[in-house]
Amino acid sequence: MEEIKVFCPATIANVSCGFDVLGLALDSVGDEMIVRKTAEKGICILKILGQDLPLETEKNVSGVAGLALLQKSDYDGGFEIEIDKRIKPGSGIGSSAASSAGAVWAMNELLGKPFSPLQLVKFAMQGEKLASDVAHADNVAPAIYGGFTLVRSYDPLDIIPIPTPSELVATVIHPQIEVKTSDSRKILKTTISLEKGIKQWGNVGGLIAGLFQKDYDLIGRSLQDHIVEPIRSILIPGFDEIKSNALVSGALGCGISGSGPSIFALSKGLETAKSVAQSMKETYSKFGIPFDIHISKINTQGVKKIA
Amino acid sequence: MEEIKVFCPATIANVSCGFDVLGLALDSVGDEMIVRKTAEKGICILKILGQDLPLETEKNVSGVAGLALLQKSDYDGGFEIEIDKRIKPGSGIGSSAASSAGAVWAMNELLGKPFSPLQLVKFAMQGEKLASDVAHADNVAPAIYGGFTLVRSYDPLDIIPIPTPSELVATVIHPQIEVKTSDSRKILKTTISLEKGIKQWGNVGGLIAGLFQKDYDLIGRSLQDHIVEPIRSILIPGFDEIKSNALVSGALGCGISGSGPSIFALSKGLETAKSVAQSMKETYSKFGIPFDIHISKINTQGVKKIA
Repeated sequence: MEEIKVFCPATIANVSCGFDVLGLALDSVGDEMIVRKTAEKGICILKILGQDLPLETEKNVSGVAGLALLQKSDYDGGFEIEIDKRIKPGSGIGSSAASSAGAVWAMNELLGKPFSPLQLVKFAMQGEKLASDVAHADNVAPAIYGGFTLVRSYDPLDIIPIPTPSELVATVIHPQIEVKTSDSRKILKTTISLEKGIKQWGNVGGLIAGLFQKDYDLIGRSLQDHIVEPIRSILIPGFDEIKSNALVSGALGCGISGSGPSIFALSKGLETAKSVAQSMKETYSKFGIPFDIHISKINTQGVKKIA
Repeated sequence: MEEIKVFCPATIANVSCGFDVLGLALDSVGDEMIVRKTAEKGICILKILGQDLPLETEKNVSGVAGLALLQKSDYDGGFEIEIDKRIKPGSGIGSSAASSAGAVWAMNELLGKPFSPLQLVKFAMQGEKLASDVAHADNVAPAIYGGFTLVRSYDPLDIIPIPTPSELVATVIHPQIEVKTSDSRKILKTTISLEKGIKQWGNVGGLIAGLFQKDYDLIGRSLQDHIVEPIRSILIPGFDEIKSNALVSGALGCGISGSGPSIFALSKGLETAKSVAQSMKETYSKFGIPFDIHISKINTQGVKKIA
């Protein structure tokens, strides 16, 4: 195989209680990417449709992630990349992770799968480091593995795929305001109360148990964030109203996607997810801020070949 | 049924990463208790074998837990209790929880099971409040439900039973020194770093996933406590040596049981648990402190009728 076209899923990191450790992949929101083997060494970003992003390999997240892969490979050629960028950068649904994960997953396929998913996550984390100064794994892990993933530990990196109940559907609203990941980390305190910590790890345990048991009520009860959401939600106009209306419309839970500004809700079933989308639209229309809205099943496959 | 004899299991709270939320029940370590219906209202503690504990109802944890149950019951009689107290108070393996949970479980059986397990936990928590000023659920929940339990939330109380892999065996060493629960809470800081919090909830998620998947390696990797153990272990002579030798002997993980001074290890299989016990004995013999040692499967039933 000399060329591959892949779908690179958008992802929701943190998932309320799981700050820096939990993430999930979306099924109908993502970029498309063509990766092609070249005789010339290195990575060449040929073109990026849809967004104004740097084409220089060292300044592009897929370039940097691809270079990390090439360094560990005995392949003596290179790759060229074309990206149809449908996830807006800065939206909080893993735009950079989709490009990083998509690039290394596609390259691994073209090389005959010499690398494990865990190794691909490590390469893709280099793209995350370029994008936000920190080599996060909570977006690239679900983008590579699909479904829900838990980053149990960074040192050593330990990614645990978590089963996804089939009726779970995500609704995501992206207000067109800019919140930089680096800024939204700066406003977090470096200490938390032990009391809130206990609540948080109780909820992480509850969410993982709920996902294994397909217990939608337990999933909903566990989708609470006592630590980050109260601080970060200040940056997102109308957050409290969006959330309370989403819950009234039947969502299991609602919170900030990654570092925001996107807000996600999880529902049982497509109909409820649609009602939640409608309530989000109605709420946000009042604020006069343009927004995109997505309804998506959970992608249990991660990056996938589409041609 | 007018009388019942029950086994009341010892329990390990916290289980390394799950401070205040996780617990498990032991199978071969526990008290025995006889509870009998009486025409006279109220609770009468007839006798306590093995330990010098108060017989006055309001000063005894099983009395206080029993009174909490009676208050919510339309039963117009009372109960008398005899306790064969085999778990030493202050050992850190849920001595007060065994008495509280055993009493209310037995009473519920005698009354034809009007109360749910969750209600029994709430009654038993009143005994815990008497014992340590705080109405903990992390020992009484596994004592009532059996196996591993997660206290996802206290408000409202939400107990999640977690499956127990069948080959898991606990080794517990109880050094005969006194560490009061209230003292061992006082030395904890009320704030923690966000960085350590993230590690802790990553491990809680990993432990729950490992228990569901019967993944003993993942269980072992997740049995880490970055927050409480570094502080509390200072109160337990030889803790670091016991722990490192237990791990060398094959234990999956090792930590402080509840607020100590008991130290627990979890192993895959009885033979490994025995080797761990041997290593603990050898290590502790050097310290000249008397100790008890227990090897026990995980009790998946909780308090149970034995006659």
